[in-house]
Amino acid sequence: MATTGKQLFTTLEEDGTLTVAIEEVSFPDPTGKQVLVKMEAAPINPSDLAILVGGADLENAEYSEGKFVAKMPEQVNKGSKARHGMKLPAGNEGAGTVIAAGDDAEAQALMGQRVSCVPGNAYSQYCIADAGMCLPLGDHSAEEGASAFVNPMTALGFVENAKMDGQEAILHTVGASNLGQMLTRICQEDGIGLVNIVRKSDQVDLLKDIGATHVVNSSDDDFMDQLTSAIDATGAFYGYDPVGGGKLVDTAFQAMERVAVSRMTDYSRYGSNQPKRMFIYGRLDTGATILTPGYGFGWTLSGWLLFPFLQSVGQDVMGRMRQRVRDNLTTTFASHYKERVNLEEMLTKDALMDYSAMKTGEKYLVTPWS
Amino acid sequence: MATTGKQLFTTLEEDGTLTVAIEEVSFPDPTGKQVLVKMEAAPINPSDLAILVGGADLENAEYSEGKFVAKMPEQVNKGSKARHGMKLPAGNEGAGTVIAAGDDAEAQALMGQRVSCVPGNAYSQYCIADAGMCLPLGDHSAEEGASAFVNPMTALGFVENAKMDGQEAILHTVGASNLGQMLTRICQEDGIGLVNIVRKSDQVDLLKDIGATHVVNSSDDDFMDQLTSAIDATGAFYGYDPVGGGKLVDTAFQAMERVAVSRMTDYSRYGSNQPKRMFIYGRLDTGATILTPGYGFGWTLSGWLLFPFLQSVGQDVMGRMRQRVRDNLTTTFASHYKERVNLEEMLTKDALMDYSAMKTGEKYLVTPWS
Repeated sequence: MATTGKQLFTTLEEDGTLTVAIEEVSFPDPTGKQVLVKMEAAPINPSDLAILVGGADLENAEYSEGKFVAKMPEQVNKGSKARHGMKLPAGNEGAGTVIAAGDDAEAQALMGQRVSCVPGNAYSQYCIADAGMCLPLGDHSAEEGASAFVNPMTALGFVENAKMDGQEAILHTVGASNLGQMLTRICQEDGIGLVNIVRKSDQVDLLKDIGATHVVNSSDDDFMDQLTSAIDATGAFYGYDPVGGGKLVDTAFQAMERVAVSRMTDYSRYGSNQPKRMFIYGRLDTGATILTPGYGFGWTLSGWLLFPFLQSVGQDVMGRMRQRVRDNLTTTFASHYKERVNLEEMLTKDALMDYSAMKTGEKYLVTPWS
Repeated sequence: MATTGKQLFTTLEEDGTLTVAIEEVSFPDPTGKQVLVKMEAAPINPSDLAILVGGADLENAEYSEGKFVAKMPEQVNKGSKARHGMKLPAGNEGAGTVIAAGDDAEAQALMGQRVSCVPGNAYSQYCIADAGMCLPLGDHSAEEGASAFVNPMTALGFVENAKMDGQEAILHTVGASNLGQMLTRICQEDGIGLVNIVRKSDQVDLLKDIGATHVVNSSDDDFMDQLTSAIDATGAFYGYDPVGGGKLVDTAFQAMERVAVSRMTDYSRYGSNQPKRMFIYGRLDTGATILTPGYGFGWTLSGWLLFPFLQSVGQDVMGRMRQRVRDNLTTTFASHYKERVNLEEMLTKDALMDYSAMKTGEKYLVTPWS
């Protein structure tokens, strides 16, 4: 007998009309390694917002119970051709209780347990999830386990990737985010140097309180000097940026080059030979990335995404990373939420305008049964 | 007894005054593996222009016999702190005859021979060069051997690097340059696919005449479709760009992603997983590099410079590359020049305004004894 429940869907039509709505749907019985999870808590991450609202005009949208209809800007709509007319689920990750399982032993072993999972349709009362990607939460609450995948594995991934590349220090351009706080704790535990960039003095305090050594405030007049000193002290010629648009990456490269040039004994018209590496792992700013000349040719900038990275490292490394998350869920990998909303509440104008601003430290949690 | 002769020097003062002048200097006797080369021909490459004139205001400079004094724009001057007050030579490469040699056998073996060399002060009547970097030219003229290093080794380097990265095709954004023509011939010889971007229809003809298959013209209305088709046909998700500023790299990534998405069976909010790789190896446009969103996170952009690349591949590979250049100097690696100027003539306003425009196919050759 099929289970029925509410699920969120997002649909972009060719004319740029975006419809996001809660529908009553039926969920199939799980087979093989699948489990059926009754979802109890799912975070709204920046990576979810891209599919949920994109750049849609939320101010002038039409709102009704469990639904909104908005216009997508023409440029964004043109770039979204591939999803035109498709009704898509949303919500990368969440936590809930396994209420049915496929025949496979791995799935059966999870029956009745609370798990963290990565179903891709977590804004839903039920989800089909892959048992291999489920993390049993033991006595932890759903809220404690809701964000056990995307941010923890990304933060751990940064450190794994840095180690693989022979680095002993990392620069992070949005230090005070949930992810940034996790990264701060991981780097302390692993003895990796970390330079955190933040935008406000209370964010400096927040990170210093959890033990960060190098926190530089981009609102300060001497920001560039602070950043240069911190890079010099740590050797962080390698960093991660979730903003994407604008000049933040450029600023990081400039500061790195300034340190490298200060260490050179001879002048070179080509700049330093010090390799400088940055990764863009998000698009909090959807504007263009601006790279100015002035730091020579010894730099590399890449996009970075969690799933391709996990595929590249393989099962063993990924298993070790997940175990570490599970063992430290309420300490190293603790997340904090500003608000809890159910599926209908998450589609009200007030909630949407608030969480789509993606302000640091103001994450929402969706609780589909509240 | 010291040899005396004319040499060009470029000096940037802290206040932004750039002085480029010919001086009479004395050259020391070569020792060890050094040789003294009487320089006969040296090309003016874009990489030389950065140190020679930078972004100086050549229109309003003061010109006198063998000298000009110009103002550097404030932004460029600020970024050039490391060279303030330094009197620097210029001219990466050239060809001439060895008239004295150090005691080392490698140096002695070159006595009396015409060689191509990479002294870094090739705009000079004499140069001290490292015997290990000299390429004996046999019966070739100095003009034939003048550009035997920078462009040939760079073009070969692109192909070597692509092969090392498992690529079977390359995109080159300035196809009709001397370097682009070499790359076209190398790719044919090595069976590597090549997509050439050019800006004019006569450049399409030029490259087709030397056997290029995929030449796309950025001035055509259907440029983006041409580019996409050529990438699809060759699999060139890997390319090199000497322009740097503006949106050329962005356009390449967009076209690559368009091909990758057309090959996908499922929609992904993150774009394709197809790795897309571009290298910036010059700054013909000194404006900012603009990277728009729209091609996901599966891309990497790096600076690329010849000398660090050669260091990374080691002596054996470099030796093999140099041998190939020597064996094919007047065919695969032939360069063409628009004008020949002596040291005084290269500092006249007419010459400077012309060669500093770096127009495709309009390279100058400096002949210090003419």
